[in-house]
Amino acid sequence: MKTLKIIKIGGNIIDNEAALQQFLSDFSTITTPKILVHGGGKLATKLAQQMQVDVKMVDGRRITDQETLDIITMVYAGKINKNIVAQLQANNCNAIGFSGADGNTIVSDLRPSKPIDYGFAGDVKKVNTETLEILLNNEITPVFCAITHDKNGQLLNTNADTIASELAIGFASKYNTELYYCFEKNGVLKNVNNDHSVIENINTESYKTLVENKVIFEGMLPKLNNCFHAINHQVQKVCIGKSDMLFDKNIKHTTITK
Amino acid sequence: MKTLKIIKIGGNIIDNEAALQQFLSDFSTITTPKILVHGGGKLATKLAQQMQVDVKMVDGRRITDQETLDIITMVYAGKINKNIVAQLQANNCNAIGFSGADGNTIVSDLRPSKPIDYGFAGDVKKVNTETLEILLNNEITPVFCAITHDKNGQLLNTNADTIASELAIGFASKYNTELYYCFEKNGVLKNVNNDHSVIENINTESYKTLVENKVIFEGMLPKLNNCFHAINHQVQKVCIGKSDMLFDKNIKHTTITK
Repeated sequence: MKTLKIIKIGGNIIDNEAALQQFLSDFSTITTPKILVHGGGKLATKLAQQMQVDVKMVDGRRITDQETLDIITMVYAGKINKNIVAQLQANNCNAIGFSGADGNTIVSDLRPSKPIDYGFAGDVKKVNTETLEILLNNEITPVFCAITHDKNGQLLNTNADTIASELAIGFASKYNTELYYCFEKNGVLKNVNNDHSVIENINTESYKTLVENKVIFEGMLPKLNNCFHAINHQVQKVCIGKSDMLFDKNIKHTTITK
Repeated sequence: MKTLKIIKIGGNIIDNEAALQQFLSDFSTITTPKILVHGGGKLATKLAQQMQVDVKMVDGRRITDQETLDIITMVYAGKINKNIVAQLQANNCNAIGFSGADGNTIVSDLRPSKPIDYGFAGDVKKVNTETLEILLNNEITPVFCAITHDKNGQLLNTNADTIASELAIGFASKYNTELYYCFEKNGVLKNVNNDHSVIENINTESYKTLVENKVIFEGMLPKLNNCFHAINHQVQKVCIGKSDMLFDKNIKHTTITK
């Protein structure tokens, strides 16, 4: 089977123009089929403030009312996605931007309004890979923003980490699928304040212990749940770390195994 | 040769939610390969006002500084394009949203800064149809917003009518290509105040006379120049009128011929 790399980048790259340019230049050198998934960074919050729309967060997750949905659609699918695509094209990487509505690639259910009403937030129900496979077979690179749809005309705000893991799972029977979560740290750290304290391997058993001992907590919990969800659904390889791990094998990072 | 319909819609449909829904439902019933091109309507101007960014126009054309480029990228490629795609999917039309950067489909040159500096405005240089052909062959419908790129990482604001005619020309050797400009009137009118005074056929010769007699003027001039540009470059059929002309053969409209 061919290898497919699914790479998710977040705010530390998106919000830093020089870092983004360097990353996209490096990303373009990857010769295997690949899919890029990007988060939104701070731009959506900045635009909301500029438009005097209140930003409502519960447990670190955005409450997506209609105005907020419009803002994230404009920022994620518009400004960020199209600028990434244009820069990839400049690096001779033939990219096409996607939301989950495009090609009906990712269908979500509206998240139940209880216990917390997150508004137009979507939980992924189904990934349709057919169209994406056609593109990958033609050396085209899909670039996903964190928006899906319900197949009834409604766009939905969806967590970018989840989109990456669900895409990886969707392709796992067709490709040797590798999932990379790039973020600001070298990986999962034993000591959150020491970037050299990378835990190089976490499996289901050691994960339990790390959670019990509160070494892994807060924002890292959903990220790692996405990792284990992927590795338990046929995804071959799941890694967390700085994006450098993709381009230099000597860079320490965390690998998730069963 | 198979028929390809390239259909451009403007503000009268984009800015009216009910009209847009009806159009997209009708559009989805078209069984030939098809491409939709949409303008931006009034939303970009509205957002600019909300963000307190000045809107600068010269001769009806927007001056696109960096802030304005960000706004149109957000509104055209984000909000409008993704909502159209989601609604087409709800109508079982498998659409994918495009700017000219996506798939490197439309490459433009930055418009010369003299006599008027329009900022980040692009004049179409080349249409690459390969990726779009793959999609059309797989019953996927591309939906274009009015943004292109220079292949060096720069997005450019580009006239939607021009995008439609250049796409039509790009496909003219591969498909029996038909180009439809949908707008708020029944076609080119003898008397601009009488929607029943449709001129049903205009050719190169009668066009000259109509321009000399100032029957055709202002905003209609560039639209008709796009029409003749297309018809003089192998496009098989060019029509202007209300979008109803697509779905009802008895609806009067203007057809452009050599």
